[in-house]
Order: sequence, then structure tokens, then C-alpha cells
Amino acid sequence: MTNKNIKIYKKESDYSYVIGASPTIELIKTRPDIVESVIVHSKFNDIPLIKNLCSESIELIFDDKIFTRLNITENNYVIGLFGKYRSVICDSNPHVMLVNPSDMGNLGSIIRTLTGFGFNDLAVITPAADIFNPKTIRASMGAIFKIRFQLFNDIDEYRNEFNLHKIYPFMLDSSEIITHDNCPVNPKSTLVFGNESCGLPDYYKLYGTCYRISQSANVDSLNLSVAVGIGTYIFAIKNNLL
Amino acid sequence: MTNKNIKIYKKESDYSYVIGASPTIELIKTRPDIVESVIVHSKFNDIPLIKNLCSESIELIFDDKIFTRLNITENNYVIGLFGKYRSVICDSNPHVMLVNPSDMGNLGSIIRTLTGFGFNDLAVITPAADIFNPKTIRASMGAIFKIRFQLFNDIDEYRNEFNLHKIYPFMLDSSEIITHDNCPVNPKSTLVFGNESCGLPDYYKLYGTCYRISQSANVDSLNLSVAVGIGTYIFAIKNNLL
Repeated sequence: MTNKNIKIYKKESDYSYVIGASPTIELIKTRPDIVESVIVHSKFNDIPLIKNLCSESIELIFDDKIFTRLNITENNYVIGLFGKYRSVICDSNPHVMLVNPSDMGNLGSIIRTLTGFGFNDLAVITPAADIFNPKTIRASMGAIFKIRFQLFNDIDEYRNEFNLHKIYPFMLDSSEIITHDNCPVNPKSTLVFGNESCGLPDYYKLYGTCYRISQSANVDSLNLSVAVGIGTYIFAIKNNLL
Repeated sequence: MTNKNIKIYKKESDYSYVIGASPTIELIKTRPDIVESVIVHSKFNDIPLIKNLCSESIELIFDDKIFTRLNITENNYVIGLFGKYRSVICDSNPHVMLVNPSDMGNLGSIIRTLTGFGFNDLAVITPAADIFNPKTIRASMGAIFKIRFQLFNDIDEYRNEFNLHKIYPFMLDSSEIITHDNCPVNPKSTLVFGNESCGLPDYYKLYGTCYRISQSANVDSLNLSVAVGIGTYIFAIKNNLL
């Protein structure tokens, strides 16, 4: 890709980028195979560090105009450009499924949490926030490069592929509060969480045992990334993922 | 306050506001005593609803220019203006303490979580993100009006006032993972969480038994609001706050 072709990210782009020196270094270390180029601003003060990390296959570009074009400010002097890639989740692992997550910040934050709790496989039911958008990537603090993820049009498409996984939808009106005691012990489990504003559609109840996270009547619902954090933490401890 | 005096929020302002019809209704229902005026845009389609809710002491203002002046867009047609108030936490309750939280979104989201888990008392060690900023209020989804909070210059100032509370700092390097089994049962407990990027200073270890939330080596740390969510949830279940 020539410098002029590097434009601000769009959903249709076949590339995306991470912004900032640390996330770029993380990207190069974790997934050197996908990195296309590293763009360095003239104000960056440790060029040898980046040069050492970049193998021959990674192009180094020195061009301040790209930073302006991509609207990158706030003392970020390095960009890591990578090609979008296809990712497939692993059948033998526990999964987390997000149904129509709409907020990129939440999605990224959840990916960071999953990585933190030993979950490596995320299923996403579309429509959903764009997992490759630089905002999602930033919110994930680079954790997106450490997990596998796969998009599905609906839960049936998922179930056709992973028919041995047991489904555990988290629903606000379930009578069963998830605890350490009643949490399933089974690597082939799928913890399912709904959209930020409307939760899961009622028909998800048909797919498996529903849980909820206890909460007071003083709030309508919990923040999605907090709810996912609690559900996955209890599962991770019970199943020795940590 | 005359219409012209209603300006965009600043930290020094002696008033703040919530944006949107639902949060404003929530504010009027929860804390009618602090509401100064409700500003309604000409595009708002349920003026009788707001009129019914507002008592005589709440002024109704119809003035579209205020929305422009406060930079309020995205289909928000109601603003609830309230006077800042002093809040004091309660000695007989468990407390959560946030030390130098820097992000208003996190702070608001944590307030929402605390309310959801039956915590009603938040101590904040300054410097800290502005709890009255409309961004914090928005992230709290109005939960800020349901809790008590109190600012302190440092933990010693807090301890002078609440000397019977037992302090439980959450530190990344603690050897004790918090679980349902080892979680304290005591209403006079203070769960302490550090800043988003640097955690708690080491000397907090001197103040009490430290805990940590288990996490994989794949991430540096958890998102603060997820960490607080897990710590407070375990405590809430063990202490029957829910």
C-alpha cells in the first residue's frame, strides 16, 4: 500500500490500525504475520526501538501527513497498520457469545476482560459493533490480537457448527442467580450476553439454562461489560481457566 | 437563575445538569429537592408528562437556544438543571473507596454498578474525575442521585472520620485472591480500588488486608469498572446486600 492510500478507517477497509507506540509494539510482538507497515511521526523519540522490532516484511513509513489524515492527535506518534484477517473459534474451548453488541468501547473492553479471565474464543452475533474499528481495538488495549473471534448471523448458524456446546443465556428475568456453586463445569460451555439496551430476545431461553447476575431494584440493568466480567469470572474460577 | 446564565458546565459551576428526558424524570423523582429548573426543547413531544412531574418549586423553561449553548444534540430535548449538593457517607454501611479515579466514564459506570449491588456509600480520594460533570452523571445513568458520596484529600482524612471501618485494598500483587469463602462479613468494610493506570500506591498495604482479583498473565490489568464490579459483587453476595 502506498502512503497516499492509507486513509481513515472505514468498515469496508481491508486494513485497520492501532494507534500509539505501546499498542503497536504489542501488535508486532503478538501478530507479526498481519502487520503491513508501521508509521512513525517525526516527533517520536525512540525510532531504534521500533526499527529493531520490525522484521523485513514490515515496512517502516515516516510521514507526518498520515497522522493528520487519520485524525490522530494526543501525543500518538506511532501507528501499526495491519490487514484484516479471518479468525475462527476453537471447538474444544468455552465460548462467550455477544448478541448484537452495539458499542465499540464495550466490545473492546469485554475482549480485554475475556483475555484477562482466560477465555480465548468469542462468538459475535451480527449486526454488531465493528470489531476491527480502531476504537474497538483501542478499548481492548491490544487484547483483540490475543483472542479468536467469529461472526455469525444468528445463534442457529453458531449451533450448526458447535452443536456440543451447552448454551447459558444471561437474562434479567431468570430465576437462577449464577454462583460458584451452581456454575457449570464443562469446557464446552457458551455464556451468552445480550445487547446493551435491550438484553437478549426471549427465545434465547429455549436454547439452554438461563442465569442472571443478582442486582438491586435500584438500577434497570448492569453495564454490559460489568455483567460479562462477573459471569465470566465466576466461570473462569470454577473451571480453572485462571 | 435566568436563562442567559445557564452556561456549559464547568468544574467551578455551582450547578450541573442531566441530559435527556428519562434521566431528567429519574432526577425529579429521586431528588426533587435539588432540581432548579427543567429546560424543554420545542421538539419535545410529551410536555404534559414533564409538567405533571414538576412541582411548583421547579421552574419550566422553554428555550431552544440553551440546547445549542450547552452543545446538546443527538435527540435530547430535555435538560434537568440541579444545584450541586454536599453529600456525606454513612458510618454504619460498607464503603467503596476510589483512589484518584481519572476517567468520568469509569466513575459514572462504577456508581451505576455500586447502586446495582446495594452499595450506597462511595468515598473518593482526590484528585479525581469530577463527579458532578454531566459526563459522569450520564455514565451513571442517574444512579449518582441514589448514592451518598464524600471526597477526601487522603486516606488518613477518611480514617479520622471512619476509624472503625476495616480497609481492604485491592492490589495487583496481593497473594490473596478474593473469593466467596475468604470475603469478609462485616458491614464496616471499605473496599479500596486504585487509579485506572497506576493502581494503588504501595503504602495502602499498611492499612489492611489486601486482595486481588485473579487474572491471566495475558493482560496488564483489568478495566477498573470490571474490577470494582467483581470485588463488590462478591462482597454484596456474602454480606446479603442484594
